Amino acid sequence: MPPRQVIGIDVGATKVQAVLLEGGNVVADARGKTPTQGGPLALVDTVRKLVEGLSGPRRPALVGVGVPGVVDDDHSTVRSAPNLIGWVDPFDLGAALAEALDARRVMVENDVNAGTLAEQRRGAARDRPDLLGIFVGTGVGGGLVLGGELRRGTTGAAAEIGHLTVRPDGRACRCGGRGHVEVYAGRMAMERRARALESRGRDTMLVDLAPARRMSSSVFAKALSAGDVVAAELMDEAVNALGIAVANAVTILDVPIVVLGGGLAERLGPSFVGRVEQAARTRLFFDSPVRVVATSLGDQGGAVGAALVALEAAAA
Amino acid sequence: MPPRQVIGIDVGATKVQAVLLEGGNVVADARGKTPTQGGPLALVDTVRKLVEGLSGPRRPALVGVGVPGVVDDDHSTVRSAPNLIGWVDPFDLGAALAEALDARRVMVENDVNAGTLAEQRRGAARDRPDLLGIFVGTGVGGGLVLGGELRRGTTGAAAEIGHLTVRPDGRACRCGGRGHVEVYAGRMAMERRARALESRGRDTMLVDLAPARRMSSSVFAKALSAGDVVAAELMDEAVNALGIAVANAVTILDVPIVVLGGGLAERLGPSFVGRVEQAARTRLFFDSPVRVVATSLGDQGGAVGAALVALEAAAA
Repeated sequence: MPPRQVIGIDVGATKVQAVLLEGGNVVADARGKTPTQGGPLALVDTVRKLVEGLSGPRRPALVGVGVPGVVDDDHSTVRSAPNLIGWVDPFDLGAALAEALDARRVMVENDVNAGTLAEQRRGAARDRPDLLGIFVGTGVGGGLVLGGELRRGTTGAAAEIGHLTVRPDGRACRCGGRGHVEVYAGRMAMERRARALESRGRDTMLVDLAPARRMSSSVFAKALSAGDVVAAELMDEAVNALGIAVANAVTILDVPIVVLGGGLAERLGPSFVGRVEQAARTRLFFDSPVRVVATSLGDQGGAVGAALVALEAAAA
Repeated sequence: MPPRQVIGIDVGATKVQAVLLEGGNVVADARGKTPTQGGPLALVDTVRKLVEGLSGPRRPALVGVGVPGVVDDDHSTVRSAPNLIGWVDPFDLGAALAEALDARRVMVENDVNAGTLAEQRRGAARDRPDLLGIFVGTGVGGGLVLGGELRRGTTGAAAEIGHLTVRPDGRACRCGGRGHVEVYAGRMAMERRARALESRGRDTMLVDLAPARRMSSSVFAKALSAGDVVAAELMDEAVNALGIAVANAVTILDVPIVVLGGGLAERLGPSFVGRVEQAARTRLFFDSPVRVVATSLGDQGGAVGAALVALEAAAA
């Protein structure tokens, strides 16, 4: 029988989210800032403090951790995590955390995989065995559940939706590719594009709202609702790129549901999700019943999913 | 224990291929023309004659049939088969053949699914649990095996590689879509394009070699080896479209092997397959070990796969 308590951690580029699950429900949560100095060891310390705050003096039995990177088959070693500052070499996060926390078992999983699993087990795609998860934030990530199980792929890189080619001669992606989804629908690339357009003389409140600091999802939401033309253009490009990506993924996988989450999707709300579904539908070859729906677990999904990964591994 | 003998049938747009498998090996084969009149009932008669030729007076126990169309979950009813003349309404091919052949069991499967399964069980991807099959002929079809099992998808339409969008603003596909793989890499669309270019004044031996009749894969091969410029341009477009499709499919699925078959691939040989792999590699986000390889069962693959579908269903 699996233990009743499990802790889930979601490591993001800017914040670390933690939840305590008891009998499958979130009974407590906490969050901290992702350290920008000190690399992996500083993160271990941040996680330790969050876990101690949640589980108190009791030794935590089970901990699941989602990280924005490629995780080895051992569910312990983070092979690469380009969005985490100071993470250069592979790092055995599972072992380091098990020691720091004196935990019985620590499972590490890709954050988007964890978020997708959570939506399938407890969220918007509850009880649907097959689904694609797409998370639109700084970049664009994806996760895939087939037959009720995460499909990680041969190299652990399945469902990298952000790097699907949607415009073969399109703009350059930071990965070196061209015309990828992330170039049009990732917040960081959209910010870069907005600043470039402004410097070429286009007028946009996107830059006024975020002159020097990060152009957040709420900045995009504000500019859009104020009728900013550049923001609307960028959003059209994002919707179109995501629509092509969804259509192509459904043409390959024939899944009945796509869950769309992440900061940008949450901030823009149901109209954004509906527009992506519509854009996909015009591109679909067969009369697919596919629905594109919003995540229902919001920004706790990754942490809940990480907890579930640990819980299910312990029960297996 | 499964019966030792099984008959496999592959119904193509122009020919019907039949094989007799004994102990897993092809011990006899036969082929006939796909009837162009009489619809489904005429096809049943064609298949009956081929089966009688192969199995003699003995009643065939097990028969598997691959058809170019959408097959219902019952593995019996062909819901639609647009490339078969006179097939308008859904037709219960399994029941009709079981009666005509007095067979114990008839299993119907999509032809490309059958071909992909055959390459996984007996062909170029032997013992690889995950693979994508792409078949380039009149159109472009695909099949997907994950974890050793065919993935048919929610509506039975998974892996419709021919209708992936590779150029969002590209040429119109016969399905009504735009910029699909099939527009650039399907023989029928390439023929249409060659004739259109010639009528606009481009000089090409493709039209000289096939002035009125079907521009076959061997016509393309001949023109290419003679240095025909239009043929080379069309082939570049086909390779590029297939490369984007493979890269996108691998980005979603993270499969380690793609098997490329069909008339055009077989006729053009290893250099074509190698060029598609190269085109895919330049588009891939992560350092995928994916290989693109030629089918090894050739045009018998579909019939062998259909036989295996029947054999495995009987053993289950």
